Amino acid sequence: MDLLKQRIREVGVVLSDDIIKLDAILNHAVDPALTTAMGKEFARLFREENVTKVLTIESSGIPIAFATAQELNVPMVFARRKKSLNTDSTEMYSERVPSFTKGFVTDIMVSRECLDANDRVVLIDDFIANGDAARGLIRIIRRSGAELVGVGIAVEKSFQAGGRTIREMGVRVESLAKIASLHQGRIEFE
Amino acid sequence: MDLLKQRIREVGVVLSDDIIKLDAILNHAVDPALTTAMGKEFARLFREENVTKVLTIESSGIPIAFATAQELNVPMVFARRKKSLNTDSTEMYSERVPSFTKGFVTDIMVSRECLDANDRVVLIDDFIANGDAARGLIRIIRRSGAELVGVGIAVEKSFQAGGRTIREMGVRVESLAKIASLHQGRIEFE
Repeated sequence: MDLLKQRIREVGVVLSDDIIKLDAILNHAVDPALTTAMGKEFARLFREENVTKVLTIESSGIPIAFATAQELNVPMVFARRKKSLNTDSTEMYSERVPSFTKGFVTDIMVSRECLDANDRVVLIDDFIANGDAARGLIRIIRRSGAELVGVGIAVEKSFQAGGRTIREMGVRVESLAKIASLHQGRIEFE
Repeated sequence: MDLLKQRIREVGVVLSDDIIKLDAILNHAVDPALTTAMGKEFARLFREENVTKVLTIESSGIPIAFATAQELNVPMVFARRKKSLNTDSTEMYSERVPSFTKGFVTDIMVSRECLDANDRVVLIDDFIANGDAARGLIRIIRRSGAELVGVGIAVEKSFQAGGRTIREMGVRVESLAKIASLHQGRIEFE
């Protein structure tokens, strides 16, 4: 998706060979026109899959997943990263995953009321690095009995293993921008 | 906003005299049509204020704030609740606030790059209870030099002090649904 790549070139801040900060468009400030366009693109890619739910995880994936859900006219569900007083863990699917950027382990949770065996789910997220969160969400989808029709990622860091490991599970993964390298501060797309 | 009140009556789960769970439409699963309608309503209410940024805080406020930003065609910024490896606190405004539903204290942060004295900001959130998060965000807006044009809340629990304390600061607060009481499991709107 050329518009996304162009914006990444304009605003991306390479912090190391592994980390690019996209706070200006994805992870802190959000550009509604760009995000709406990403949602339309994911909807186009998955429209024939009869999606019933768009699943993501808080927080940065929410705008893109929401824009996708708007376009597909189905509910969006965002997995929570920890327990709050409003939830009851006996009602939740829970998986423990490490977070590449946050540097610690979190429990991700989806209510049993939000996913069931009749659902056809597309999983949307902003970034994929090592894929821990995505694999945790895929385990939750499978435990619920729902069908995973595919994974849509805004920015795949293809020099890290996440996207590959999920494709090797037989899952369709669509990434709107694939970054092949951040070496020496330079953003190189595939 | 009648559609929101109707959906609250349909799906709201009253957990105590203080807490209503709206996981089916706001806090876990999100209804894109309802959320888009809420965004249009906030855009209508604040359109003449020449808003330049829509500010919210992760996570449940994000879809509504995003829908508002889509309609006003301005960026949406979501405050983060804690530090991750991708942020540098010397670049951030930070305020410490208690969370009514989460039961602990969090630091909320907005990058200095995202708000400045030229901005006219509308603050959007899903719920207001005691208003601690909203007051923290208002302190951040004021420290940045930006102008706060108003606060838009999907669900105000008007039996708690949050909305009132912010109105008493002279800030315009618009709530789409005001819950006067959750006593004995009954949802009563103002």
